[in-house]
Amino acid sequence: MSGIPYADPLLDPLFTTPDAADAFSPRARLQGMLDFEAALARAEAAVGVIPSGAVAAIAAACDATLYDVAALGAEAALAGNTAIPLVKHLTRKVADADAEAARFVHWGATSQDAMDSGLVLQLRGFIDGLDATLATLAAGLAVLADRHRATPMVARTWLQHALPTTFGLKAAVWLDSLGRDRQRLAAARARLALQFGGAAGTLAALGDSGPAVAEALAVALSLPLPALPWHASRDRVTELAAALGILAGTLGTIGRDVSLMMQMEVGEAFEPSGPGRGGSSTMPHKRNPVSCAVLLSTALRAPALVGGLLAAQVQEHERGLGGWHAEWQALPDLARLVAGAAHHAAAMIDGLTVDAERMRANLELTRGLILAEAVTMALGETMGRLAAHARVAEASRRAIADQRPLRDLLAEDAEIVAALGLDGLDRLFDPLRYTGSAAHFIDRALADHAVMERAHGR
Amino acid sequence: MSGIPYADPLLDPLFTTPDAADAFSPRARLQGMLDFEAALARAEAAVGVIPSGAVAAIAAACDATLYDVAALGAEAALAGNTAIPLVKHLTRKVADADAEAARFVHWGATSQDAMDSGLVLQLRGFIDGLDATLATLAAGLAVLADRHRATPMVARTWLQHALPTTFGLKAAVWLDSLGRDRQRLAAARARLALQFGGAAGTLAALGDSGPAVAEALAVALSLPLPALPWHASRDRVTELAAALGILAGTLGTIGRDVSLMMQMEVGEAFEPSGPGRGGSSTMPHKRNPVSCAVLLSTALRAPALVGGLLAAQVQEHERGLGGWHAEWQALPDLARLVAGAAHHAAAMIDGLTVDAERMRANLELTRGLILAEAVTMALGETMGRLAAHARVAEASRRAIADQRPLRDLLAEDAEIVAALGLDGLDRLFDPLRYTGSAAHFIDRALADHAVMERAHGR
Amino acid sequence: MSGIPYADPLLDPLFTTPDAADAFSPRARLQGMLDFEAALARAEAAVGVIPSGAVAAIAAACDATLYDVAALGAEAALAGNTAIPLVKHLTRKVADADAEAARFVHWGATSQDAMDSGLVLQLRGFIDGLDATLATLAAGLAVLADRHRATPMVARTWLQHALPTTFGLKAAVWLDSLGRDRQRLAAARARLALQFGGAAGTLAALGDSGPAVAEALAVALSLPLPALPWHASRDRVTELAAALGILAGTLGTIGRDVSLMMQMEVGEAFEPSGPGRGGSSTMPHKRNPVSCAVLLSTALRAPALVGGLLAAQVQEHERGLGGWHAEWQALPDLARLVAGAAHHAAAMIDGLTVDAERMRANLELTRGLILAEAVTMALGETMGRLAAHARVAEASRRAIADQRPLRDLLAEDAEIVAALGLDGLDRLFDPLRYTGSAAHFIDRALADHAVMERAHGR
Amino acid sequence: MSGIPYADPLLDPLFTTPDAADAFSPRARLQGMLDFEAALARAEAAVGVIPSGAVAAIAAACDATLYDVAALGAEAALAGNTAIPLVKHLTRKVADADAEAARFVHWGATSQDAMDSGLVLQLRGFIDGLDATLATLAAGLAVLADRHRATPMVARTWLQHALPTTFGLKAAVWLDSLGRDRQRLAAARARLALQFGGAAGTLAALGDSGPAVAEALAVALSLPLPALPWHASRDRVTELAAALGILAGTLGTIGRDVSLMMQMEVGEAFEPSGPGRGGSSTMPHKRNPVSCAVLLSTALRAPALVGGLLAAQVQEHERGLGGWHAEWQALPDLARLVAGAAHHAAAMIDGLTVDAERMRANLELTRGLILAEAVTMALGETMGRLAAHARVAEASRRAIADQRPLRDLLAEDAEIVAALGLDGLDRLFDPLRYTGSAAHFIDRALADHAVMERAHGR
Repeated sequence: MSGIPYADPLLDPLFTTPDAADAFSPRARLQGMLDFEAALARAEAAVGVIPSGAVAAIAAACDATLYDVAALGAEAALAGNTAIPLVKHLTRKVADADAEAARFVHWGATSQDAMDSGLVLQLRGFIDGLDATLATLAAGLAVLADRHRATPMVARTWLQHALPTTFGLKAAVWLDSLGRDRQRLAAARARLALQFGGAAGTLAALGDSGPAVAEALAVALSLPLPALPWHASRDRVTELAAALGILAGTLGTIGRDVSLMMQMEVGEAFEPSGPGRGGSSTMPHKRNPVSCAVLLSTALRAPALVGGLLAAQVQEHERGLGGWHAEWQALPDLARLVAGAAHHAAAMIDGLTVDAERMRANLELTRGLILAEAVTMALGETMGRLAAHARVAEASRRAIADQRPLRDLLAEDAEIVAALGLDGLDRLFDPLRYTGSAAHFIDRALADHAVMERAHGR
Repeated sequence: MSGIPYADPLLDPLFTTPDAADAFSPRARLQGMLDFEAALARAEAAVGVIPSGAVAAIAAACDATLYDVAALGAEAALAGNTAIPLVKHLTRKVADADAEAARFVHWGATSQDAMDSGLVLQLRGFIDGLDATLATLAAGLAVLADRHRATPMVARTWLQHALPTTFGLKAAVWLDSLGRDRQRLAAARARLALQFGGAAGTLAALGDSGPAVAEALAVALSLPLPALPWHASRDRVTELAAALGILAGTLGTIGRDVSLMMQMEVGEAFEPSGPGRGGSSTMPHKRNPVSCAVLLSTALRAPALVGGLLAAQVQEHERGLGGWHAEWQALPDLARLVAGAAHHAAAMIDGLTVDAERMRANLELTRGLILAEAVTMALGETMGRLAAHARVAEASRRAIADQRPLRDLLAEDAEIVAALGLDGLDRLFDPLRYTGSAAHFIDRALADHAVMERAHGR
Repeated sequence: MSGIPYADPLLDPLFTTPDAADAFSPRARLQGMLDFEAALARAEAAVGVIPSGAVAAIAAACDATLYDVAALGAEAALAGNTAIPLVKHLTRKVADADAEAARFVHWGATSQDAMDSGLVLQLRGFIDGLDATLATLAAGLAVLADRHRATPMVARTWLQHALPTTFGLKAAVWLDSLGRDRQRLAAARARLALQFGGAAGTLAALGDSGPAVAEALAVALSLPLPALPWHASRDRVTELAAALGILAGTLGTIGRDVSLMMQMEVGEAFEPSGPGRGGSSTMPHKRNPVSCAVLLSTALRAPALVGGLLAAQVQEHERGLGGWHAEWQALPDLARLVAGAAHHAAAMIDGLTVDAERMRANLELTRGLILAEAVTMALGETMGRLAAHARVAEASRRAIADQRPLRDLLAEDAEIVAALGLDGLDRLFDPLRYTGSAAHFIDRALADHAVMERAHGR
Repeated sequence: MSGIPYADPLLDPLFTTPDAADAFSPRARLQGMLDFEAALARAEAAVGVIPSGAVAAIAAACDATLYDVAALGAEAALAGNTAIPLVKHLTRKVADADAEAARFVHWGATSQDAMDSGLVLQLRGFIDGLDATLATLAAGLAVLADRHRATPMVARTWLQHALPTTFGLKAAVWLDSLGRDRQRLAAARARLALQFGGAAGTLAALGDSGPAVAEALAVALSLPLPALPWHASRDRVTELAAALGILAGTLGTIGRDVSLMMQMEVGEAFEPSGPGRGGSSTMPHKRNPVSCAVLLSTALRAPALVGGLLAAQVQEHERGLGGWHAEWQALPDLARLVAGAAHHAAAMIDGLTVDAERMRANLELTRGLILAEAVTMALGETMGRLAAHARVAEASRRAIADQRPLRDLLAEDAEIVAALGLDGLDRLFDPLRYTGSAAHFIDRALADHAVMERAHGR
């Protein structure tokens, strides 16, 4: 456990994952920058800007475990960013091995080139891991959608009973939005490009070799080559932040629904439980929905972090003051949180306990009122929608007042019986017969999911 | 003027555009819903769900000018949304003309179907208009990028002088991010799909005809047909909000830079001026950067609106409580603001006054310090980067202390003169010779812009 | 209805109140500025800075109904703020009556003096009205707290059943936080001071008379006199915004709880209903919690507006660019929304239907598990808390598995019966006996409320 | 260095302080909860709820250094909060020493009692430390305000030259808002009360002894005793968050202004510099405004964190799901950031380099236009404000066009010379004579500051 570089060892195990903690640890941040510096040396040697002989010593020193994080942090507090002291220490370390090579460390680059490109490397790796978790979640949702395509339950709107639906459709709706989340993440990832512009974004220190070095560098780091440096154009950062924030909303929606279904009075679905999981310190009977708590908490925190990053997008001139700094912790914070939520969602969906009987029982709670629309529609065919609406509304009011089944009240109305027949009335009160296109929608969502999985080669 | 339906006639003329005010006026909101209702009748008649004879009367009543906005607003305050009273009034109006047809108004749909689809229609039209403004802005930036490719100016990082760059490159950087903004808007627009699910998202009231009606309806409204209803999956909404928020950041960045360049002490670029524009009530000499104020104001307000919409994304069960309501005004507010900013940016860039002489003069302010990197790089080739850095840094400190040109101090250093020659030293202090790949980057951005314009058929 | 100056006549009747719409209408904004201008003339005449003869003509023209809002809006779009054209038109109007007096309009002031002071006047009036609504809400909560002090219900934590509580305590908790909200609003109101500094915040145009005029002006407007102008110190604005945002959270909490209690499966409390209120367009049985929707929607939108205003607080130099502009609509938007939520909360609490029987029935749902803590504590006295916890936890697990009452399972455990007796066991399962200090807490909250009401002279 | 428990050792040294890192370290979080548990035992023994003999063993185990943070973190990830495993381990540790005492650990309390009260203890200590830093900052500002009361400089509005002011007044304005920030922090601190309600907020497990224990506990912890538990009433938390967010805005305003004054072209004030401080990796002449970067970065991040906490304020029923969790890291994050900004502001103001000559020189940049208002006001006395405005505006336009001093142009206007005299004209162009009430305002701010310092006994 102590091997995982949690920033907050007390709470991060709840709110994030070991992988995400690793991806954005101080060590990983350093390694991102050092990967940039090593690749820069290689690219510049390949183009002939620096001697080939310098590469080996530089590359050898580009190992984050060789550096003292706390010391670099202290120097960064004076310098204003991490790359300045890191390049200093890197140069010294190279010099220890090869004084000549040390002259070519960081050649023509600026701090932000190393920091942004390093961050991009971290982020792209992180997104790959996150997408794998989302693929697991999507697979779990697809299983639920398919398995429960004929499991009727109450559809609720405004937190009130509306009509019947199926649990399979609910899962399919979650799956459908998750698919778009993954597309957005992929689009954001594709725009996370190399940063390389030198101190003013002109690569002036490289003379005419700038474009050639940039191209070689992008290849070396497997990063897209942008049209030009983006030191102060932070839309790539905010696009990713937004994609993560939207995903947090999707995950939060799942968490909200499960937590509502898990209420004692509803009892339709439950987070998986296990030893030490969700117990209360004082109430032995209680099982806390821990994963839902994380999903909801993240859905509350993520929008604010996105908003903050958007506010920081306005950066002055060629490289900004304050706005860039505001990204350094906020974006990793956001990424870590969303990874934790994705992990909880995948585990929760995988182990979700579904109580189909209770779902069915809850459909009966309104004594048939939930099928009032079905009756209204059927009646509407003969007596018009508004008239039918009024007639059924009146019967519904009496059903509530007298605590009697709506069907029985309608059966006392000769005009209605004439229109529908008693058998017809009974059929109208079967929830399974009133789920419309639910199965069709499930099929559509599953088909989209299959296409996406094939595209990922899964 | 009084013809434009500004929500806030005192301030909206500053912060938004007549077109955006129109696009999101109460009348336009009603018309969006009514367009849905008319198309629904047509689609249902085409599929055979309702009689063809009902279409004419319904379509005729789907004209927003026929309804009393204030009365609908008052009823909506009780009903909880606008569609409920609108459908009621619509049905009455249809009944006045054709009692039979009135039975089929809103057949099988739910309030949110009309409201979301209507909003989507409004939004797609709005985005088209916004993109036209952005195309104008992009064209203006492309002109600046090309015209000023050899206009040297100070590149500033952390609000400090860094190195020379060109004003053309600055414009190209703005253009480059604007291109991605337009792509994101297009992606968000493409996901704004038909909403059609009926009360529970199952289209139950349509029996087996749901998918066929949905398809016909999507065609009738020229809207994408989604896999399933998205009543509680609001990522489509938040994706658009995020795209607008990111665009606001791009526009705000332009506004910040222009406002900084427009400072008396800098004086490099100026908003266009004119009668009544930017004057002060008490200082006759003063010209306020009004467009920059709008760009910056919008860049401050938009992130918060995006954050609020993201927070509202968590919507319960089949249709949520509160979250959906939170979108109704916040998304139009955001759209209106961003349209205003885009308009100001386009006008400002079109009429921007650029003072190339002052840009050149500001390059001289540091008595050559701004070219210290150039000298360092050149020296670094012989004496190593760190040593060169130290030597030039020391000379720079003296240049500041003694208020002497850096060149003169370096010329007194025999080792440096030996390394570079006095002529070489002079060449190093020509800013035009130290803008590296700036022209290359401008070409790249202009090429991307041309591709995008061709794709738009412009 | 059409007399109410709603910015959005379709949705504002749901989300705000006529009073709040009035308080922040374009007309009210103009009148706020004109009240400043009239008082300024009076104060300057009293101090002798302008001739007394000028006051009458100026004061007469300071009537907002005399001005064309749309025309002012159009000119403000060029000028960058509303005060510039307003002062121009005001001066012209004064000149029509008294050319000499027109020379002294706006004497020594700057646009922001009029706009901020006018806003402060609007805000203070608005807060008074809001507090009256909150007093009504508090009175309603006090009634509920007192009336239901012995109405047992389930206390829920993490959306799970925890222990018994009383509905009276729930209302008392709401009341308690509302009390602090009102204190915070009062504190924020007290800091909303006169703005008067002239173009640079020095009152230079008034020579030595600045302080005397400022003092007379503050008296004339019944506004606190600040130590100095606060053109770029916007903490007064953000403090009010924060107080409103926190209040929105308190109101949203009430809305969330009521909406959860109003779920079909819970059924413990209900919003008032009435004709046209909360009906569904398609489901005749359905009653939408409209007030809860507004409370929750506002609780989602308000935090973002607060965040945006906080971000705008950083304003440059003596008067900022963009930040100030960002306040103009965002603060009124926030105020209007919170007023709407307060109104809905007061009405909802006043007419809340409480189903005490259902509350009692829900307490039985866990077959006694909800009193497991009571048993644990009682047992803990003899066998230690941890051991008791383990024993009761085990019995609870069996109670769930076997669907048997916990009491019966415990009654089969000889050691437990020996410790507590069967009678003791039965007493432990009476929820009324396990509400601890609930009544004491209610008394404390009611006492605090009474103190506050006396302080307000109610 | 490694002794400081930075969550992010690479960046936290820049963005926060060792004290704040300490105050919110995992260890401090544990100690806060353990302080609660120890005091609870003492209070309960004093009231007679638990045996006095149990206190010693419990208190002895309430030492955070005895626990394994990583292990607790891992268990908390399953349990859903930190207090559950902590109480488990604490009980075990007490049992090792005194099995009897272990029965009384955490008696009658709930997890949230320990977590909230522990947090409150951390926060109150933190606020005290923060206020000490703010007192230093205020003292530094008071010195600047007094020292520079006669240092004229340009007042800038909308980033444009407006009129003369003094640097002393600028410092006094900062000081004035800081005073209100400290009052708000004190008010928020005073509301941070004991949390003690047991599992349902009723203290049911304590029978009739709840109030007595609560009172003794509040005394033992030196915390205010609230009217009732506030498990789901989070306004105390959001009030503090808002106070910190507003303070961040005040500090950001200082940072913005200093960074603007520090621009090469303005050159009026400078952050302190020193070895390793603010250097650039590639530009030897460059000095980055590191403290301003932190102030601005914090002012961008803090509003979003406040917004997120406000959104989390809506917490369900007696203890919420997700909202509470959302506070755990966000509030400490905010506190740490604001502490860092306060530290940077205090250090920056203490060592600020002020270039009064440059301030004076910048006043001359507009060739007298900056005093156009002075002339307008003086002329207005004879020819009316509007006419004077028009006359001076015309001269100003010519002054700009012809690059001539405004004074000279006015001196060519016989009517103006007749009105003012040439000497009078010259006096009007002395900026020192046109700073109005600046000194008066400085005195007011210094007096308020002195009152506050006396109240703090400094």
